[in-house]
Amino acid sequence: MRYDIAIIGTGPAGLEAAITAKVRNKNILLLGTKALSAKVESAHVIQNYLGLPEISGVAMQQQFQKHLDAMNISITEDRANTVYAMGEYFAIQGHADMYEAETVILACGMSVAKAFPGEDENLGMGVSYCATCDASLYRGKSAVVIGYSQGEEKEADFLAEIADEVIYIPMYDEETSLGSRVKVMKNVTPIKMERVGSKMVLTLDNGSIETDGIFILRESVAPSQLVPGLEIEDNRVVVDRSMKTNLAGLYACGDITGAPYQYIKAAGEGNVAALSAVNFLADKKKKQ
Amino acid sequence: MRYDIAIIGTGPAGLEAAITAKVRNKNILLLGTKALSAKVESAHVIQNYLGLPEISGVAMQQQFQKHLDAMNISITEDRANTVYAMGEYFAIQGHADMYEAETVILACGMSVAKAFPGEDENLGMGVSYCATCDASLYRGKSAVVIGYSQGEEKEADFLAEIADEVIYIPMYDEETSLGSRVKVMKNVTPIKMERVGSKMVLTLDNGSIETDGIFILRESVAPSQLVPGLEIEDNRVVVDRSMKTNLAGLYACGDITGAPYQYIKAAGEGNVAALSAVNFLADKKKKQ
Repeated sequence: MRYDIAIIGTGPAGLEAAITAKVRNKNILLLGTKALSAKVESAHVIQNYLGLPEISGVAMQQQFQKHLDAMNISITEDRANTVYAMGEYFAIQGHADMYEAETVILACGMSVAKAFPGEDENLGMGVSYCATCDASLYRGKSAVVIGYSQGEEKEADFLAEIADEVIYIPMYDEETSLGSRVKVMKNVTPIKMERVGSKMVLTLDNGSIETDGIFILRESVAPSQLVPGLEIEDNRVVVDRSMKTNLAGLYACGDITGAPYQYIKAAGEGNVAALSAVNFLADKKKKQ
Repeated sequence: MRYDIAIIGTGPAGLEAAITAKVRNKNILLLGTKALSAKVESAHVIQNYLGLPEISGVAMQQQFQKHLDAMNISITEDRANTVYAMGEYFAIQGHADMYEAETVILACGMSVAKAFPGEDENLGMGVSYCATCDASLYRGKSAVVIGYSQGEEKEADFLAEIADEVIYIPMYDEETSLGSRVKVMKNVTPIKMERVGSKMVLTLDNGSIETDGIFILRESVAPSQLVPGLEIEDNRVVVDRSMKTNLAGLYACGDITGAPYQYIKAAGEGNVAALSAVNFLADKKKKQ
């Protein structure tokens, strides 16, 4: 099945894109988390989202959920690992599944994490962002998983079912709860990674680990890694006022397009991105 | 008194700009009508303003009013006739008063009315948009007022206190209620206007009127007339993604910047325009 519009992200930008696309009767895939947006959830009080005065992040999320429910929009719990522009359509490699869509709207927020030295250069050659995608390559081998939230732990457990040795480095303070096949290393800080012969070496603040592969599991992948060929400037996706990127059929909205990082700005852009995708689909149909 | 930010328009774009500017502690002037937006008010149901599912235009306006009340924002009931870029500040000629502001945000919606043939050429020389501004020029003279809503009638009455003869042509179906000094001509359609010697000739579908001046009173003035020197393209104000126009310190947002004509898009742009104005003010202060 090929979707009309795949929307990646469940913050205000993605949700607004979804409801607008739904109003226009498009067949949509909304990829993200049922918890919607951790950023919104943690907001103490939002003063300037017009129509929702003095609202807490939690209450705002409830309003958003009500809106999704009213329009029968469901969220597919998955995270995009890579979006490939295939010419006539897009292929989205998620952690749980593969998806196809005519158009894609990136609404996955700002990637706050900076890449480690050696990360970009070795991506796909010893560094990976998706354990479920690449686990099979690690049969009988060793791997280190750098996880940025508790949600990543199940990927490490899955990897450990296949790999011989898995070391997990949590980048958060909460308790970890991993299977017995995973060795957890707490209170260490990764510094850099490099290839040495057939192995990867991960340098830590207090030593180093030699391993076959390093998995870096963050909430959001840097946009340049997420979509090969996407035009980026100062760590934000370049868009025009119609939210069009340099790749035909691909749109971006919300924090990923740069400052100001504001909910109503993100929602407004989600609306524009969805309508641009709708127009793109109509033009494409005319040409057929 | 000089305001930090003057916001012209009380639709979603102007209101969002106002609440965002207020959050940033700016001294704002919000010019418009206490009825907020006639366009929103008349909307049957709005489906895609994220957070306000399935809402009527009337209910949405109530939510907006609640937001203004919660933030102690009041509306100055007036309409901008001309905005002059004075170099270091802006002078706004309203129908009721004159205002000064460091920065201006245009959020006055799309001007739907097309100019009459002869209107633009004779503006300021026999054609005027503001009876209270120009009435004094019509002492002992005659004038025709073309009014687009009942709200314009009081301007015609005021003009009739000074001018010798005032003819009022209502461009709407509702009943008129004008003073005895004003002659009302119903069911006629203005076609064009031209200067003939020292007089203006207004051609109607069923005849013509010779007069000293023609007042055209519309809800919104075309942006090109509103702000001399403003860059316009296809009847919309040209802005970049920061909502900046070609005039330093002047921003635009909402329908006036072009399609899509959507409430959440307008609100999102209002937010961005306000933050851009805030940044402009900060930069200006640094330079002093």
